[in-house]
Amino acid sequence: MTVLYNDPAEFAEDQLAGFADLYADRLRVVPGGVVGHRGPTPIVAVVVGGGSGHYPAFAGLVGPGLASGAVVGNIFTSPSAAQVYSVAKAADQGLGVVLSFGNYAGDIMNFGIAAERLRREGIDARIVVVTDDIASSPVEQERRGIAGDFVIFKALGAAAAEGADIAGVERAGRAANAATRTLGVAFSGCFMPGAREPLFTLPVEHMGVGLGIHGEPGIRDAPLLPARELARLLVDGILAERPETPATRVAAILNGLGSTKHEELFLLWNEIRPLLDEAGLTPVEPEVGELVTSLDMGGCSLTLSWLDEELEGLWHADAYAPGYRKSAAPTANLSPAVFGVSAAEHESAPTPSPAGAALAALLRRGAAELQRVLHENEAHLGRIDAVAGDGDHGRGMAKGIDAAAAAIEPLDGAGPGWTLRTAGRAWAAEAGGTSGVLWGAGLEAAGEALGDVRPVYDASAALDAVIAFADAIRDLGRAEAGDKTMVDALLPFRQSLSAQVAAGRSAAESWRDAAVLASEAARATAALRPRKGRARPLAEKSVGTPDPGATSFAVIVDTIGALMSSSTRERSIR
Amino acid sequence: MTVLYNDPAEFAEDQLAGFADLYADRLRVVPGGVVGHRGPTPIVAVVVGGGSGHYPAFAGLVGPGLASGAVVGNIFTSPSAAQVYSVAKAADQGLGVVLSFGNYAGDIMNFGIAAERLRREGIDARIVVVTDDIASSPVEQERRGIAGDFVIFKALGAAAAEGADIAGVERAGRAANAATRTLGVAFSGCFMPGAREPLFTLPVEHMGVGLGIHGEPGIRDAPLLPARELARLLVDGILAERPETPATRVAAILNGLGSTKHEELFLLWNEIRPLLDEAGLTPVEPEVGELVTSLDMGGCSLTLSWLDEELEGLWHADAYAPGYRKSAAPTANLSPAVFGVSAAEHESAPTPSPAGAALAALLRRGAAELQRVLHENEAHLGRIDAVAGDGDHGRGMAKGIDAAAAAIEPLDGAGPGWTLRTAGRAWAAEAGGTSGVLWGAGLEAAGEALGDVRPVYDASAALDAVIAFADAIRDLGRAEAGDKTMVDALLPFRQSLSAQVAAGRSAAESWRDAAVLASEAARATAALRPRKGRARPLAEKSVGTPDPGATSFAVIVDTIGALMSSSTRERSIR
Repeated sequence: MTVLYNDPAEFAEDQLAGFADLYADRLRVVPGGVVGHRGPTPIVAVVVGGGSGHYPAFAGLVGPGLASGAVVGNIFTSPSAAQVYSVAKAADQGLGVVLSFGNYAGDIMNFGIAAERLRREGIDARIVVVTDDIASSPVEQERRGIAGDFVIFKALGAAAAEGADIAGVERAGRAANAATRTLGVAFSGCFMPGAREPLFTLPVEHMGVGLGIHGEPGIRDAPLLPARELARLLVDGILAERPETPATRVAAILNGLGSTKHEELFLLWNEIRPLLDEAGLTPVEPEVGELVTSLDMGGCSLTLSWLDEELEGLWHADAYAPGYRKSAAPTANLSPAVFGVSAAEHESAPTPSPAGAALAALLRRGAAELQRVLHENEAHLGRIDAVAGDGDHGRGMAKGIDAAAAAIEPLDGAGPGWTLRTAGRAWAAEAGGTSGVLWGAGLEAAGEALGDVRPVYDASAALDAVIAFADAIRDLGRAEAGDKTMVDALLPFRQSLSAQVAAGRSAAESWRDAAVLASEAARATAALRPRKGRARPLAEKSVGTPDPGATSFAVIVDTIGALMSSSTRERSIR
Repeated sequence: MTVLYNDPAEFAEDQLAGFADLYADRLRVVPGGVVGHRGPTPIVAVVVGGGSGHYPAFAGLVGPGLASGAVVGNIFTSPSAAQVYSVAKAADQGLGVVLSFGNYAGDIMNFGIAAERLRREGIDARIVVVTDDIASSPVEQERRGIAGDFVIFKALGAAAAEGADIAGVERAGRAANAATRTLGVAFSGCFMPGAREPLFTLPVEHMGVGLGIHGEPGIRDAPLLPARELARLLVDGILAERPETPATRVAAILNGLGSTKHEELFLLWNEIRPLLDEAGLTPVEPEVGELVTSLDMGGCSLTLSWLDEELEGLWHADAYAPGYRKSAAPTANLSPAVFGVSAAEHESAPTPSPAGAALAALLRRGAAELQRVLHENEAHLGRIDAVAGDGDHGRGMAKGIDAAAAAIEPLDGAGPGWTLRTAGRAWAAEAGGTSGVLWGAGLEAAGEALGDVRPVYDASAALDAVIAFADAIRDLGRAEAGDKTMVDALLPFRQSLSAQVAAGRSAAESWRDAAVLASEAARATAALRPRKGRARPLAEKSVGTPDPGATSFAVIVDTIGALMSSSTRERSIR
């Protein structure tokens, strides 16, 4: 949602004032838009423009190597002819002005009227219209301009910066437009300032294919696709409309519309890249990020621009604008680090005692059962973690047990100590996060305590493992009882187990009863206020919800207890 | 929503693979994260890190002048100690490693374990924890690290690039942290990959004050504020926790969390800037944009960092990372354009005939009534425009009539021709867009046709004005009947008016009946498929909804008709 404004009607003006204050050292506001400061040698002026709401387009693309000025209309609205004229007049350095913008009726009219007025005053004014959106029409000249705008602006700006005359700059822009194709998809509509409903909505789990950059919905709705299939849709769509050229090198833009974030775009690029290779195309300095947005709209587009030698030179060229900066120099003298990844430790597993081997086999089967249970509880754990935390606990525990189970699955013949240590290391390495490091360290400590060669693995062995686990958790996490952490279930569990083992009960019986206490203790954490960890500042919100770490601990010891009871006839644990 | 992925569980790895492909010329993936290529002279390594989902933090901040490496955990999850160790080991150039990250329990543990392991191997490892979030705790050392991360990373990276030894780099980072304060607000929760519900929700029209960058909700909920008041809340909040320093120059970051866009941030900056002036603070090279995000979360934060001479030098320094680029050189030799804004045309209004003066007075009153009606219809016109267009028609018409009414309001004594021409120019200049240029040109043409000095303004004068209006619209817009534009209401209106005036009916009667036809024709456009203008590619979606331009035309002529009827006794129009 677009929520930051004073008066929605003044949004465009107000944001421009803030922008101009930030970049007052390199550009100035003129009636109708902004004009960049000039270098010592006059160049052909490149004036781009359109409505507001597309940052960095259009004002954010004013700077050396890019546009000389930008006309700034209201949100998603063509600027007036008077605005275009005013900005062009101020940007002109005596060598004429190239006006460039996307192909929309309002822009065509207003920029056209302004160009005529400039020509009447003796200023050479050329127009380069961008028509990259293949979804908008089968006829090239009737297509809209969307993210491909950037390629054309870059070519114009680079040609002007190189000192080309107005005919040369215009020619470069037209060549770039003829070589450029874009196809996009929309995931969600944007919110105009002051609006409480988005400009459009899509059916659940659908996307609009053929997005507009003015908040228009797509040309057709289609079910949402996994990234791999979306990459195919975008690449195939563009290749079907590829320009006639022998070029195989392409400038590429994967553009986010506003709320589709960099991480998602990187992920999608990872799927697009091999498809370009497959098509015999070499992407040249691809840009993945936000270049032409639509407020907070969800969606993205892929632009390919087939490069001949001249266009590739213009694409490479340095540029320095508020919203786009590129420079060859800082990376020119870098070289990859040469380093040896430290060889993994290759101790070999000690040969276990028969009792150890039997327990290890049980642990491997137990890991599989814990995988099932933790995946079953993943969503629930995530939800209770999100109440006052970051919601990742379920995911972290699932990743941890998956890693642990995968690591110990091939360890046939190892003992229980080795098995638990391996499980702990894998858990910590793969799961990350607080729970990952704690469970990893706890399991490793438990493995050390159990060892591999005890003649029997009985109730006191189980107690040794639990005590080592608890000590490791307390050393590392420094949490006390009452802090609303895993410790609030762990301590009662250890205490109960200890008392029962001392009283001579079997491992399975002791564990089962201790697990019941742990579950009760985990539930009772709902009443607590957290004092440790990430949730600390959100203490109040957490009251009424049990601690996720205590909850997952209880789930795990409960599962292990059930396994022990069902396997007592194997006598592995007595 | 986060929608681009293959398997949500593999999101972090997959996005890193795409990122690494894009920047393979300057960094490489190592187990646990990425490491930047090296320059010819070894420097102290600065390794930053934390979970994924914060781009450009953390991997996007690897590059000359910034971090040497970034550890990349799962989404919002601390990386493991093994990951930290691996990245630090690869980043070390023989001069030691400074590890820097936000103050979260998981990161503290994992980076701490890794640092100990590095030290055991003889690699000097220092830790600089970021604690900038004033909302998270009254105690400085217990505070979380949020967008202020960037200031500390920048100081560390610049100090390392300048060739400082490890103690000097560490000291610079600690000084930057001690000088840095952040306060943020959340507007909406982010969506984890695969999730269909956000991590948190806020009550309607509320924000969370004291955001987290892991999708945590704010510390407390408060009603949403206009930008001006939010600026005050952020600045006052930080000033209440300002560090003890005589410095008055501050580095400033206004950081967007993901779906709060640049335009909104610029607008907010425009409100923050005067408050800093008021507090005697001078912002130095403020950064307004996305530096530490939280997937597609809505929200923003303000960071101020009080600069002594050393810290200011580090803040100024060049940097070149995928997600942050700064360079003094490209703007060094620029100077503002010197240009004279062309003086406004100062023709003076001709003295009107008595009939002309009377009609002009009526036009000014009529403009006020049209303002009322068009504002009343603004939302409705926006909605029908959004079905297959960009939703700005209501706003554009309201801006246009506001501008026109304001421009003619002081024209007491001018004639109707002058009044309409002035109204048309103001409308075109302020409203922008297709409707702005069309209405502007149409009114100007109508004014030319009416003139100021006719002895009587009767039905045939009204017809002359309408014909001139229609011709201008057709010349400029090149739309034909049936294209689903304003023309589909305009032509029947003109035709009906013409026939009635020829039959000798009065202006008021003819207009009223023609307006009824225009309304019917506007409604009938619902059945049409658009063939012109921005809506063209969305033809199918538009069927069933009337054309917004035809609708607003019908509303306007209907309003004028009612005014004419009620004022016939004034005999201004017969």
